[in-house]
Amino acid sequence: MQKLTVFFVSDHTGVTAEAVGHSLLSQFRGLEYRAQTVPFIDTPAKAVALTERVRAAMPALVISTLTDQAIRAKLRDCEAPLFDVFDAFSAPLATMLGMAPTASSGQIHGMSNSYHARIDAVNFALAVDDGLNPERLGEADLILVGVSRAGKTPVSLYLALQYGKKAANYPLTPEDLGVATLPPVLLAHREKLRGLTLSAERLSQIRNERLPNSRYASLENCRSELQAAEGMMAASGIAVIDSTRRSVEEIAAMIVHTV
Amino acid sequence: MQKLTVFFVSDHTGVTAEAVGHSLLSQFRGLEYRAQTVPFIDTPAKAVALTERVRAAMPALVISTLTDQAIRAKLRDCEAPLFDVFDAFSAPLATMLGMAPTASSGQIHGMSNSYHARIDAVNFALAVDDGLNPERLGEADLILVGVSRAGKTPVSLYLALQYGKKAANYPLTPEDLGVATLPPVLLAHREKLRGLTLSAERLSQIRNERLPNSRYASLENCRSELQAAEGMMAASGIAVIDSTRRSVEEIAAMIVHTV
Repeated sequence: MQKLTVFFVSDHTGVTAEAVGHSLLSQFRGLEYRAQTVPFIDTPAKAVALTERVRAAMPALVISTLTDQAIRAKLRDCEAPLFDVFDAFSAPLATMLGMAPTASSGQIHGMSNSYHARIDAVNFALAVDDGLNPERLGEADLILVGVSRAGKTPVSLYLALQYGKKAANYPLTPEDLGVATLPPVLLAHREKLRGLTLSAERLSQIRNERLPNSRYASLENCRSELQAAEGMMAASGIAVIDSTRRSVEEIAAMIVHTV
Repeated sequence: MQKLTVFFVSDHTGVTAEAVGHSLLSQFRGLEYRAQTVPFIDTPAKAVALTERVRAAMPALVISTLTDQAIRAKLRDCEAPLFDVFDAFSAPLATMLGMAPTASSGQIHGMSNSYHARIDAVNFALAVDDGLNPERLGEADLILVGVSRAGKTPVSLYLALQYGKKAANYPLTPEDLGVATLPPVLLAHREKLRGLTLSAERLSQIRNERLPNSRYASLENCRSELQAAEGMMAASGIAVIDSTRRSVEEIAAMIVHTV
């Protein structure tokens, strides 16, 4: 039998359809499939054109997030099984709420906060990346603190892009770590501080990719920097997240929702 | 009646549950609700604790992406209506595929590409942001081109974080625009070039936020820069996206899937 093709279809970017689809299919261990993401199917005509592509790719399966019933109806002609989030939930939700859904007012977004806030937050994260412009820390919603290469920059950018949070990041340098307390410029904003740490082994590995066989990357030095940084953060009572086995998006979700 | 509380519940970051939930609910115009995102519900005990929170918040509604059936079963005791993506689709998918789902092997991720590739891509985007280190353009998957403030930086960072694409960005400066063709350093990588443009009105507005009442921000100057840039990009036959009414994630999805 030919390999299954799975179409992730959306009237917007396809990010949510992909996430839902990959996740659903990952429950079936050993299933092999070719994934095709098809975003911006936002008119019945585009859905009709897509049915041809699906038919040509049989055996196929469609997982979709199409807000408009008329567009879903057109796509249903593709003959492949179609699993749509709106098909599944709109009717029971309408019954439960006692309200009628309006066509095409819904839109699936991978990102939830207001658009300009997110762009401003990206610009802010770049302006204050890596301890730059510390006089602007007062504008921050959050300040990520940790040793060099603890993962602060990607987390601050993701916080900006996904959540519209203005996240500064401030590296604890060897000079900072030679003192018993966090730098005064940070202590002035203690309630905004969130610490990032990781295992010395992982940190050494990451630093070795940048500066192989350096003192900076040595396991011994990583251990001593981390110990000093963790001691300092604990003494100031700031929440610390271990990034060793967590992805950027997991760390960001923890920061936003749980710490 | 008290305002409805909607819980977006996930065993991972909650980004997909939020996206699905907000999108489903936006179909019901005029519905008011208080949203509560609850990520990392990855054990039955956490689900049991959550049922208490839901009961205390009645009237409530739960929209969830919980891969593990045992965790969903616990959460169902909360008495509020529960709409779960796996509840809805796992059984029909299993029937269609002729395979049994395995518990908790699925995970909903907001981001699909391999983790290290994404972090490398973020570091790359920062290293080559705004025309820095042009000798590294050969490493890029894509090079975004456009006038200053056309939206290149946020798009390149989103391409990195969401898709693991190494996206450089290169600003067309007034000096570049004084010549009839794209700079040679870009033409050497023509197949990787993607143009960004926008309306002169919108560009002038964005630039005025940065440098109010400057020549740089004036409508006349924006118009002339955009005209030169668009002419240059058209002459080189590169795909150009108009960002005026598109979000960063829409532009990124277009670049990845359609242009």
